[in-house]
Amino acid sequence: MKKTIIVFSGELDKALAAFTIANGVAAMGDDVTMFFTFWGLNILRRSNKVKAKKSFLQAMFSKMMPRGAGKLGLSKMNFGGMGAKMMKIVMRQEGISSLEELIASAREQGVKFIACTMSMGFMGVRKEELIDGLEYAGVASYLEEADEANVNLFI
Amino acid sequence: MKKTIIVFSGELDKALAAFTIANGVAAMGDDVTMFFTFWGLNILRRSNKVKAKKSFLQAMFSKMMPRGAGKLGLSKMNFGGMGAKMMKIVMRQEGISSLEELIASAREQGVKFIACTMSMGFMGVRKEELIDGLEYAGVASYLEEADEANVNLFI
Amino acid sequence: MKKTIIVFSGELDKALAAFTIANGVAAMGDDVTMFFTFWGLNILRRSNKVKAKKSFLQAMFSKMMPRGAGKLGLSKMNFGGMGAKMMKIVMRQEGISSLEELIASAREQGVKFIACTMSMGFMGVRKEELIDGLEYAGVASYLEEADEANVNLFI
Repeated sequence: MKKTIIVFSGELDKALAAFTIANGVAAMGDDVTMFFTFWGLNILRRSNKVKAKKSFLQAMFSKMMPRGAGKLGLSKMNFGGMGAKMMKIVMRQEGISSLEELIASAREQGVKFIACTMSMGFMGVRKEELIDGLEYAGVASYLEEADEANVNLFI
Repeated sequence: MKKTIIVFSGELDKALAAFTIANGVAAMGDDVTMFFTFWGLNILRRSNKVKAKKSFLQAMFSKMMPRGAGKLGLSKMNFGGMGAKMMKIVMRQEGISSLEELIASAREQGVKFIACTMSMGFMGVRKEELIDGLEYAGVASYLEEADEANVNLFI
Repeated sequence: MKKTIIVFSGELDKALAAFTIANGVAAMGDDVTMFFTFWGLNILRRSNKVKAKKSFLQAMFSKMMPRGAGKLGLSKMNFGGMGAKMMKIVMRQEGISSLEELIASAREQGVKFIACTMSMGFMGVRKEELIDGLEYAGVASYLEEADEANVNLFI
């Protein structure tokens, strides 16, 4: 049966958890929809700088937020990025897929990615800043998907 | 079908997510119960100072915790309250409802608010400090509601 | 009906919430599986130092992470451990069970504890460092349990 995951947090550790679950669901042959909102949108940002029309405050917010999966910190023990770097090294040593690989695999397996249009508004995130292949929708679409699912997580 | 949301976190961004979902559910005609526990109780505090009997440590805790929806910070990039202020300005610019409006709308639409009595105990929060119209209950009541629901989130 | 809880966070307040719910479910006669991943593994660590083979970075991580339920901090207002200490005193004053008591009660009531083997890998946590009576599994096992459950939380 279908599963949904709201990806609210934009940290490496929580993103790893979300995409590990999403890939696991897809591997079992079930549908899964990931709904990216608030800080979770940062996971979907392109790594290059993109010109986009923003208000002064939105531009400030954007500048301070990480651009994409490769730039995320940890929710704990990040130490200005050192913690995230250390975790990535250990993951490689242990042969565990990186977040970028998990995202690619999720897309290949047909996991649906929805970017929350309302939080794009107040985070000042524009479509041209996000990776391709996303759907754009609001809370009503989330609830429709969740109504058909038997596991609904908020991460 | 019914939905439940445990509101554990007392930050502006997470509260916005919780109340946006709750209003969305109510708009679709479904029942929704919000269960406020731990830091989530702060969202329900009255903004004025209320006299209440507390132990020394409970009084200290209360003094440090935000009084109501208008005083919450962000879970990230708060910068001593500046981040929350910035986000509120951008929300107004984008025509997005404030947290206070979302709370009022949830109440008008009949969303059920339950304050967790156990966490009120160790957070040192008294009934007279909280807004009107709440129910008071513990984990057993939460589980009864969740058993009847098809979407159960922990925020 | 069965419930599952992913315990991702390793803080005292979130652990209290997770174990209060788990005990509540068990008290109502339902099965509940707790799946410990990432920082949540710290809750299951033995309090004594255990020798275990680790890479340099894994050993560093381990040294910085709390050893067991008695050492956890709060997710907010921790103040280098003072906040957690204060909360424990208030809990005792109010006659509320400690985390250690909640864990013991959950085990007595047959709550199933699963430690996530993948995150043990990159957190550098070894079986001999964790308390007895755990099962070890990955995301596929979690999804099997969640598929049979009607409440699935991510804490």
